Amino acid sequence: MANNQYVTSSAEKVLNIINLYELEEDAGKVIPQDGYGYIYSGAGDLYTIKENIASFNHKYIVPHVLRDIENPDTKTEIFGDQLTSPIIMAPVAAHKLANTQGEAATAKGIADYGSILTMSSFASASIADMADAAHGGPQWFQLYMSKDDDINRKILDEAMAHHVKAIVLTADATVGGNRETDKRNHFTFPVGLPIVEDYQSGVGQTMDVVYKSAKQSLSPRDVKFISDYTHLPVFVKGVQTAEDVEIALQAGAKGIWVSNHGGRQLDGGPAAFDSLQVVAKAVNKRVPIVFDSGIRRAQHVFKALASGADIVAIGRPVIYGLALGGSQGVKSVFDYLQTELELVMQLAGTHNIDEVKATQLLDNLYGN
Amino acid sequence: MANNQYVTSSAEKVLNIINLYELEEDAGKVIPQDGYGYIYSGAGDLYTIKENIASFNHKYIVPHVLRDIENPDTKTEIFGDQLTSPIIMAPVAAHKLANTQGEAATAKGIADYGSILTMSSFASASIADMADAAHGGPQWFQLYMSKDDDINRKILDEAMAHHVKAIVLTADATVGGNRETDKRNHFTFPVGLPIVEDYQSGVGQTMDVVYKSAKQSLSPRDVKFISDYTHLPVFVKGVQTAEDVEIALQAGAKGIWVSNHGGRQLDGGPAAFDSLQVVAKAVNKRVPIVFDSGIRRAQHVFKALASGADIVAIGRPVIYGLALGGSQGVKSVFDYLQTELELVMQLAGTHNIDEVKATQLLDNLYGN
Amino acid sequence: MANNQYVTSSAEKVLNIINLYELEEDAGKVIPQDGYGYIYSGAGDLYTIKENIASFNHKYIVPHVLRDIENPDTKTEIFGDQLTSPIIMAPVAAHKLANTQGEAATAKGIADYGSILTMSSFASASIADMADAAHGGPQWFQLYMSKDDDINRKILDEAMAHHVKAIVLTADATVGGNRETDKRNHFTFPVGLPIVEDYQSGVGQTMDVVYKSAKQSLSPRDVKFISDYTHLPVFVKGVQTAEDVEIALQAGAKGIWVSNHGGRQLDGGPAAFDSLQVVAKAVNKRVPIVFDSGIRRAQHVFKALASGADIVAIGRPVIYGLALGGSQGVKSVFDYLQTELELVMQLAGTHNIDEVKATQLLDNLYGN
Amino acid sequence: MANNQYVTSSAEKVLNIINLYELEEDAGKVIPQDGYGYIYSGAGDLYTIKENIASFNHKYIVPHVLRDIENPDTKTEIFGDQLTSPIIMAPVAAHKLANTQGEAATAKGIADYGSILTMSSFASASIADMADAAHGGPQWFQLYMSKDDDINRKILDEAMAHHVKAIVLTADATVGGNRETDKRNHFTFPVGLPIVEDYQSGVGQTMDVVYKSAKQSLSPRDVKFISDYTHLPVFVKGVQTAEDVEIALQAGAKGIWVSNHGGRQLDGGPAAFDSLQVVAKAVNKRVPIVFDSGIRRAQHVFKALASGADIVAIGRPVIYGLALGGSQGVKSVFDYLQTELELVMQLAGTHNIDEVKATQLLDNLYGN
Repeated sequence: MANNQYVTSSAEKVLNIINLYELEEDAGKVIPQDGYGYIYSGAGDLYTIKENIASFNHKYIVPHVLRDIENPDTKTEIFGDQLTSPIIMAPVAAHKLANTQGEAATAKGIADYGSILTMSSFASASIADMADAAHGGPQWFQLYMSKDDDINRKILDEAMAHHVKAIVLTADATVGGNRETDKRNHFTFPVGLPIVEDYQSGVGQTMDVVYKSAKQSLSPRDVKFISDYTHLPVFVKGVQTAEDVEIALQAGAKGIWVSNHGGRQLDGGPAAFDSLQVVAKAVNKRVPIVFDSGIRRAQHVFKALASGADIVAIGRPVIYGLALGGSQGVKSVFDYLQTELELVMQLAGTHNIDEVKATQLLDNLYGN
Repeated sequence: MANNQYVTSSAEKVLNIINLYELEEDAGKVIPQDGYGYIYSGAGDLYTIKENIASFNHKYIVPHVLRDIENPDTKTEIFGDQLTSPIIMAPVAAHKLANTQGEAATAKGIADYGSILTMSSFASASIADMADAAHGGPQWFQLYMSKDDDINRKILDEAMAHHVKAIVLTADATVGGNRETDKRNHFTFPVGLPIVEDYQSGVGQTMDVVYKSAKQSLSPRDVKFISDYTHLPVFVKGVQTAEDVEIALQAGAKGIWVSNHGGRQLDGGPAAFDSLQVVAKAVNKRVPIVFDSGIRRAQHVFKALASGADIVAIGRPVIYGLALGGSQGVKSVFDYLQTELELVMQLAGTHNIDEVKATQLLDNLYGN
Repeated sequence: MANNQYVTSSAEKVLNIINLYELEEDAGKVIPQDGYGYIYSGAGDLYTIKENIASFNHKYIVPHVLRDIENPDTKTEIFGDQLTSPIIMAPVAAHKLANTQGEAATAKGIADYGSILTMSSFASASIADMADAAHGGPQWFQLYMSKDDDINRKILDEAMAHHVKAIVLTADATVGGNRETDKRNHFTFPVGLPIVEDYQSGVGQTMDVVYKSAKQSLSPRDVKFISDYTHLPVFVKGVQTAEDVEIALQAGAKGIWVSNHGGRQLDGGPAAFDSLQVVAKAVNKRVPIVFDSGIRRAQHVFKALASGADIVAIGRPVIYGLALGGSQGVKSVFDYLQTELELVMQLAGTHNIDEVKATQLLDNLYGN
Repeated sequence: MANNQYVTSSAEKVLNIINLYELEEDAGKVIPQDGYGYIYSGAGDLYTIKENIASFNHKYIVPHVLRDIENPDTKTEIFGDQLTSPIIMAPVAAHKLANTQGEAATAKGIADYGSILTMSSFASASIADMADAAHGGPQWFQLYMSKDDDINRKILDEAMAHHVKAIVLTADATVGGNRETDKRNHFTFPVGLPIVEDYQSGVGQTMDVVYKSAKQSLSPRDVKFISDYTHLPVFVKGVQTAEDVEIALQAGAKGIWVSNHGGRQLDGGPAAFDSLQVVAKAVNKRVPIVFDSGIRRAQHVFKALASGADIVAIGRPVIYGLALGGSQGVKSVFDYLQTELELVMQLAGTHNIDEVKATQLLDNLYGN
């Protein structure tokens, strides 16, 4: 069976990162082809995945001078946790595709940096293993629901037992996107998914099968169920319209997570950064907004914050750091963005994250 | 004579389709060069044919979440016929260019899927052969008129005798488009055109000659003639303006078919999808709208329906399926779009075709 | 001396033209490199020369159906002369660069087709030779003025003696454009310029030197001078603004010629077709408008006419036809456009040139 | 040590320039790779550096005819100095990277042409050497401030002793931009920076270290300090917003310098030419505006002047001229632009710089 032959990286080292595009290329040399295809690629014509990055040029950061800045401060806070910067880790399935150390190394690297890991339900490690590796760092838990609520309660119990600070309900993946790269590579998971093993073992399964084993008919009732059961703040992830903001908030969500699942689900939809403008206006500061899908530069972080996000999440770059450098590689990715963010804040004339969030971006009128 | 040497595919098998662009490339390997050129290419600078596909990015489908959907329903109905989905087959000349089985295989594949074949007047099979192969499935008949109304009556008699449900008057091809690929390949039809044999045998003729043997001076009188003679609903095909909508409806048309003939006629005109926006507003639900020209994705189907189309028609992709897999290949193309359409409907938060048609698309403000 | 070695085509034959872009490539194989560079290339970054063609996609021709058309009529008339179509020949210097037969062959080919040659002051043939070769066909005369009005009178006398119907004052070339291709090729004229030999022999000179020997400080007085002296209608060529329309008309011009000199003069300016929209509005039918710069398709002819031009002129394509086929090649270029124009008129639903000119084009909102 | 091995050009000759893009390529063949990378490259994704040039196509120069022009006059004046044209030299660090003759050759070439050298604080020559080489030609002085005001006074004393006419405070480089090319090349300065040697020797240092040794927390107080101390007009360089115009003018600036540091600092910001439109409106002729970042054509010079700039500065092209031809190469670059500027002015119908500045450009509505 092909899965027996899946041999990925086990690297553990600090990385010297030029930029995250090159990091992606480098990671492609150490991760097996089918696993790498699963990680880097997107849905359909790859239109939306490309727009996710390109759309950041729809807005400009205008430099400001004479602002008396020497050391911009990137620190921020969410739900009582202090973070080194507003950059956290998005939920990503099966980190063992990229490094044999898997999620434990990711959790350690992020905690060492001083940020949040959002654990995926489809992690290739248990909640306990991730929580232990984070050595006290804050963690959130992303839920793919089972069709059986008893299983859901059991999974949530485990998350709460390990003191996660928020639950993220991924609502934009009730069916697997059209991942043509995976079809070409005949990709199936070579590793198990211990958190959801009561409804899906994972090993040897396609993404389609995995998604179909989870609950597809998500509704506002599910938001209420999780909220009532856990008393934790619930994010609805995958929101891109004003209408869905109201549905989510009325159902009890305490946060909105703008995302198009990294361009992996519905191709032919808007870039997530374009949707952020719409959602932020609709939310109007009632609850925190997390943004992901396309962040590859501190400029993107800055533009998302200036467009209404309180926190931005990154996914693939962290997995590439994990592949190339284990926990230290994960931290290197955050450190790289940290340095670039300080640079951008300095040149944009902003002393701290509040000033970043108050910044007026300039519309790009020329469509480049 | 070159026609004696035209040896095309005779394949008959189920196809594993990744996407329709790759299907086109694969078909190019089994269809003789000149026939393939006739099929895939378009007019002039190929501007409009490229825009036909690119224009779907002028509008976005925005994902919607928490809509409680498990199995979206693609079924629809037109003129009393139940269809598996709103995707039917456009009229395309001479299917024997692609597969020796010709239109009989196409008719069978479409009927097996559960949709409509629009028979072309320039078919390489008789009406009877197509109707028989469809084993009870619904069929429409596309008319290129003779300059002699007696011939027209005879052809319509034959179509009515085989119970076609509608007549499609192609009005945008009163002269052959500027097909440079055909000129380079010195393309002439290697197969006969039995339906119109009373005014045009077809064999050994260029497309220009074939079109010129048909009636060029089409007018509203022709719509009325067909309508009065057949008492069947008549579509005028090739409508792209509000003005032409009124001309067609006043002449007695019971349906409007938005098309630019797959970018094969007037290069330098608008994409058909852009014209659909204009036409749908003008029609204002008075009669059904069929849309073709550029559909390669279920996203395109969805966007056309959300822009006012009741039915979408596909042409070239079906011919490629026919070339590579005969009747089963034809069905594979429809099955492929069916699966993708269900996926798109799920992620867009739409339970059924009525909800798709009621969907508000998002304007792409950035011109990508 | 390089000029002694300039050996160009002497072809004389009918051409089978697929399109004018390929004709340009083919011509490059029979014209010496430096002469070809002078002909095909443009100014500076080649931005404006490219936009001249690309800009036609700023407007769409929308197909119209059921218009009862069989044989569209392309005939038109200007200053009492009947033309086969509204397509005439723009003034182009030194046809002997392309074919040893030079302007005599061009004049014959155009007269055979039934249109107008605009003789260039920088022709490599005399006015008499061109007039004779045209065997009665109408001709216009383009003037580059000498700094010496006696010479100007002598040249105009010669033109009037050969019954030219209009004088075209080229006003956008009072200095040579920045032709980098010519600089790289060290291009100098290998042939004489007999019409202007009293102020410039031409042979062995760069374009810069030739232009500088002509009058640079053109003003409205020059329009009046020509008009008063010849009593012929005077076109001012190179007009792109409403302001210049008024200056020209007040100076006595009886026609406006919209042109950016084929993108050979001021790079970084607007496409001529974009300027046509502005100029036509300003002229408001007071005098005829001729348009050149970028015409490579009958679609372009149609769009220019529908945007306010009464006549369109083509330059480079005719020179390519001359290079490849002499007088017959010249006629082949006009025949090619004639056939395509009839096709476009048929599909656009227009019976004749008046209907073309009354056509409403559609704005391209998407910038492709 | 690598610095010992830095062997660059020592050319001294007149250059035959086709265009400045080719000049850049040619310079890359005579400057060592790491030094060349430092000079030509920009920040981050190179988005802003590319837009700096591309943005000039956001506006068109429209040709004007019949304006009675023979020899357009490019002369202008600033702060009492007569200049051959409004084109001056921007401050650029370490000219010895490009030519062993360094700034002395640049100063001589510019003085020979008749324009201004803006001396960089990070010059690889002393103020005295540059002033001597300029043999009486006017010079401005650009200041990177020390954190120690005594050092600043000493540097300003030296500049005043050599009669500089203005001080330019670079405010957009309080930290080094993200220069990935330099990181790949492991670039450090191979030459000393004598002007700032009291706070930074330069040799063997990265750009990051050099910038960090300078004062980062620039504020309006620094503008006032320089102005009060020198009684010279102070430009604030790096202004791109209306807000910063007011801050600078209120702090005592007597000129505004629009620049994004040649795309070397904050990538993801607007093109400098786009910012010029905004700044010019805000300044509203209260003080002179200097513009740099992206000038490669006289068209760009013209468009900047017509958009509100009084003076344009060029940087990299001069360094390329220096590399390839020493002082004569520097003058060749200015001469090249001079010739092209006269050409553009002629074709645009403008007699002198005042008419250029009064010219209305045309908006490019099509985004090309």
